Amino acid sequence: MRGAVIYGPRDVRLEVRDDPKIVEPTDAIIRLSATCVCGSDLWPYRGIEAVQGPAPMGHEYVGIVEDVGSAVGTIKPGHFVIGSFFASDNTCEICRAGYQSSCTHREPMGTIGTQAERARVPLADGTLVATPDLPPEDLIPGFLAASDLLGTGWFGAVAGEVGPGKTVAVVGDGAVGLLAVLAARHLGSERIIAMGRHEPRQKLALEFGATDIVEERGDEGVARIKELTSGLGAHSVIEAVGTQESMMQAIRSTRPGGHVGFVGVAHDVELPGQEIFFSHVHLHGGPAPVRRFLPQLVDLIWNREIDPGKVFDLALPLEEVAEGYRAMDERRAIKTLLWL
Amino acid sequence: MRGAVIYGPRDVRLEVRDDPKIVEPTDAIIRLSATCVCGSDLWPYRGIEAVQGPAPMGHEYVGIVEDVGSAVGTIKPGHFVIGSFFASDNTCEICRAGYQSSCTHREPMGTIGTQAERARVPLADGTLVATPDLPPEDLIPGFLAASDLLGTGWFGAVAGEVGPGKTVAVVGDGAVGLLAVLAARHLGSERIIAMGRHEPRQKLALEFGATDIVEERGDEGVARIKELTSGLGAHSVIEAVGTQESMMQAIRSTRPGGHVGFVGVAHDVELPGQEIFFSHVHLHGGPAPVRRFLPQLVDLIWNREIDPGKVFDLALPLEEVAEGYRAMDERRAIKTLLWL
Repeated sequence: MRGAVIYGPRDVRLEVRDDPKIVEPTDAIIRLSATCVCGSDLWPYRGIEAVQGPAPMGHEYVGIVEDVGSAVGTIKPGHFVIGSFFASDNTCEICRAGYQSSCTHREPMGTIGTQAERARVPLADGTLVATPDLPPEDLIPGFLAASDLLGTGWFGAVAGEVGPGKTVAVVGDGAVGLLAVLAARHLGSERIIAMGRHEPRQKLALEFGATDIVEERGDEGVARIKELTSGLGAHSVIEAVGTQESMMQAIRSTRPGGHVGFVGVAHDVELPGQEIFFSHVHLHGGPAPVRRFLPQLVDLIWNREIDPGKVFDLALPLEEVAEGYRAMDERRAIKTLLWL
Repeated sequence: MRGAVIYGPRDVRLEVRDDPKIVEPTDAIIRLSATCVCGSDLWPYRGIEAVQGPAPMGHEYVGIVEDVGSAVGTIKPGHFVIGSFFASDNTCEICRAGYQSSCTHREPMGTIGTQAERARVPLADGTLVATPDLPPEDLIPGFLAASDLLGTGWFGAVAGEVGPGKTVAVVGDGAVGLLAVLAARHLGSERIIAMGRHEPRQKLALEFGATDIVEERGDEGVARIKELTSGLGAHSVIEAVGTQESMMQAIRSTRPGGHVGFVGVAHDVELPGQEIFFSHVHLHGGPAPVRRFLPQLVDLIWNREIDPGKVFDLALPLEEVAEGYRAMDERRAIKTLLWL
């Protein structure tokens, strides 16, 4: 089969890889319908995260089940399924508490590499969620978004305790930040401030439910949020970037007693203890336990109550995966979908 | 009147200070019945926090109201009152959300200095809570503990989301840590692991409701907590020290999805962003909004349902304040009460 492989910074190639096989009786093999390039894929692509290539890439996926191991019960060949970037048993104590991305048996899909024609999904029953039927083609981008982007934005919103009566600020206008706006709206927040200066993204933020746009960043951005919230700061701030500046912007934009939900993968971030102490904010985040939200998200998309697929502003065939990375790296695209 | 004044590291003196007067119409003047030396007073005493002496000391207090300003309504002369280390209006949006120690009009009692015969309490109606009647003498240490130690331990437990079915670990065996054990027990936690190696403190921890004692600290302490919790870590960890080691010990002792309530005043603490991200813990803490809990705590003490006054293992007259500091600095006493 063909699959994307990274060799080094800005060097992603489509190559022939071995076809996946059932290894454990809990595995499933899926034929991908679509996959995509994640904001977090840009960290190794840009050389900010060390690359030990050649390594397979991709951890987002939707597709049709082709084969299952002998211990797989609920997932069947022919199902159209969505899974998360961590495979999880969904039965351990940590999973049952809603933290499937810290499952005691978790396996990262990124090392399997889903920017490919087929993929092995470990712990299929605990990882995959099937749609009620084969979906119409126009819903596929939405389901693909649920695999990571939407699930991650949703977790940011839940970790940030958004809800009715709350003012929410979102730091980061990438696909996750935009879908955090959508999540905050769906979860009942009335005022949602999207922080970002790129016009097409601002437009999408407003479409997803943002009520205000703040273009300033850093200390100026914080001052602007304070101005908009009687000097107190937002009740909930969702951080969807992962840099020192964005984390501090999020923390400082939050009122005492408020909540920061952080889902941008932290890179070279150090949180000053004394400032955190006196800030009185709640901090929670990390790799989103997407599996917790998937059944609900699949329902919402299937019933066309939300349309997260709009974040994909570039769709290319898997053959053009290298161009998909380039377009996102150069910010020509918010998010690249790869179809098969 | 007489009051304690710090001149520099390990130099606390009892001196004649000006009698306090009503400055604002919302002020009250109280005659102290008892005060104490706080663990946080040891930071400047030990020279770890810069001292710009001479400066008055003390921020914990119980006493009898002598006079009130013209705008004070509920607090009356003759009341026996308990207040927190931050004066608060208890009416602003932040107070109403339960964060009185970040009140938009807060005033630190530490700069007023309550290790003295009398003290001015700003925002008296929002700061002070009166007992139903003058308390019997044996309850005074308990009420004094509520002013900070108990209120802080309680906040640590609440921020750490202790409760039925939870395993709780407490890092720090000072008075706050010990009272966090008491709070965790009162709030329904079944298993409470106190971390500390000093025998008298271990004994008190067990008396307050601890079920296990762990003497190891740092990575060894973390390993021991994991051993006691099927490898997962505690659901809730209360941090009551404020050092880099104790914060990391608390975070690493917590399971994914669990909660760290941190109430030790952070000194030279830097939290590694990436580790926090992947830890999946909730972090919340800061200066305890004691006023949120005071009405409930005063009831519990008045009705003799809890006896937090037991943490005072040394009682001296205010005249011997210098010895009170020394005894705590040299760890001869957990906590010094000063009576008047």
